[in-house]
Amino acid sequence: MNLLSNEELTARLRQVGERRYHDKHPYHVRMHEGKLSQEQVRAWVANRFYYQKNIPVKDAIILSKLPTREERRRWIQRIVDHDGTTGNEGGIEAWIRLGEAVGIPREEMLDERHVLPAVRFAVDAYVNFCRNRPWLEAVASSLTELFAPGLISQRMAVFEQLYPWIQPDGLEYFRARLHQAPRDADHGLELVLRECENRRDQDRCIAALQFKCEVLWSLLDALSLAYPDTEKSR
Amino acid sequence: MNLLSNEELTARLRQVGERRYHDKHPYHVRMHEGKLSQEQVRAWVANRFYYQKNIPVKDAIILSKLPTREERRRWIQRIVDHDGTTGNEGGIEAWIRLGEAVGIPREEMLDERHVLPAVRFAVDAYVNFCRNRPWLEAVASSLTELFAPGLISQRMAVFEQLYPWIQPDGLEYFRARLHQAPRDADHGLELVLRECENRRDQDRCIAALQFKCEVLWSLLDALSLAYPDTEKSR
Repeated sequence: MNLLSNEELTARLRQVGERRYHDKHPYHVRMHEGKLSQEQVRAWVANRFYYQKNIPVKDAIILSKLPTREERRRWIQRIVDHDGTTGNEGGIEAWIRLGEAVGIPREEMLDERHVLPAVRFAVDAYVNFCRNRPWLEAVASSLTELFAPGLISQRMAVFEQLYPWIQPDGLEYFRARLHQAPRDADHGLELVLRECENRRDQDRCIAALQFKCEVLWSLLDALSLAYPDTEKSR
Repeated sequence: MNLLSNEELTARLRQVGERRYHDKHPYHVRMHEGKLSQEQVRAWVANRFYYQKNIPVKDAIILSKLPTREERRRWIQRIVDHDGTTGNEGGIEAWIRLGEAVGIPREEMLDERHVLPAVRFAVDAYVNFCRNRPWLEAVASSLTELFAPGLISQRMAVFEQLYPWIQPDGLEYFRARLHQAPRDADHGLELVLRECENRRDQDRCIAALQFKCEVLWSLLDALSLAYPDTEKSR
């Protein structure tokens, strides 16, 4: 198998997103069509929080495995983005406020009472993937960020227009991600393009991104099963 | 076995330092008496660099295991202190400049040509300890910082007065640690005192600190064997 050019590898990675990114999942499609019930939206926010709170954990794992100080200096910003440095800063806090904006008390977000077992398994699988696989595959698994900005800007419009009952100040998380995600995706893609030494490395990076898409997909599968369409939402 | 009070546990931890911290090692004693040859000082700086460069790695591992965002917000500063955020910032760069100040070209620091196998084994054992043991023991192992400030201020005076051939601008690393180490030690001790739930936890934290002292001691053992006293230095 020949080494893919940077253009070919980038195209293959983007193809993974086109085929498998969670925006194609029926639950997500219905969310963006404005068809989810309040309960279904709440369930999505509360379960997705388990993913959100594990982002700085997996990023600290990747940080510990990156080969140079220079790469750590760039990667560490992801942790700061989610944890913040003081007070109410950071993406985790912003997601808690999204929870409040859809009617989930902070306490119920923090105690994980709404988190479905299959969501926990999928997110834990992602953290363990980053822990156990070579760092380059862990980096490649983060490249769902390539597909995020377009979806997030849609989602902000969707939430504002189709779910007017959501408090608009709950959308700050998405606003921040609009500039964070492209920067993170650029760095991740740069590393993957630069560090793959052979076709096997490239194929493993593509597989890592597929795996990550499966993680996000599984979250929505679990939600679909636990929160099926009601008469009203169908 | 009864739970130790905070005062008792703190005293037991300090006792570990009094008995086993590396300032009691003959190689270190000779260093602070001004008796090391230039070659012995260079060997210490070059080998200790392997420890220094692994500090942000073990701190990122601990970061990934800390239980809350609040603790991560504090712990992450250790990584920034060593890696810096841009240009020549950070403790790793400062230690490379210490190398240059004692006559080791930057390239020879970076390629690890002077690093002794036993030094590598000991430092890797430390990183693996932080990776494989519960986070509280990893935190406890960092408490050699309790003993560092006194030693470091001595060392700066020793280097300036007894090793005048060392370029004084190479001592910036130690200057920075004078305020970083007490802050780090305070946080680590606070976590250990707060999170130990029983005497077994406390004993494991004490053992973790002993282990860490053994790591630092082993570095000097390896140096003693590879760089024995010359006629001149004896």
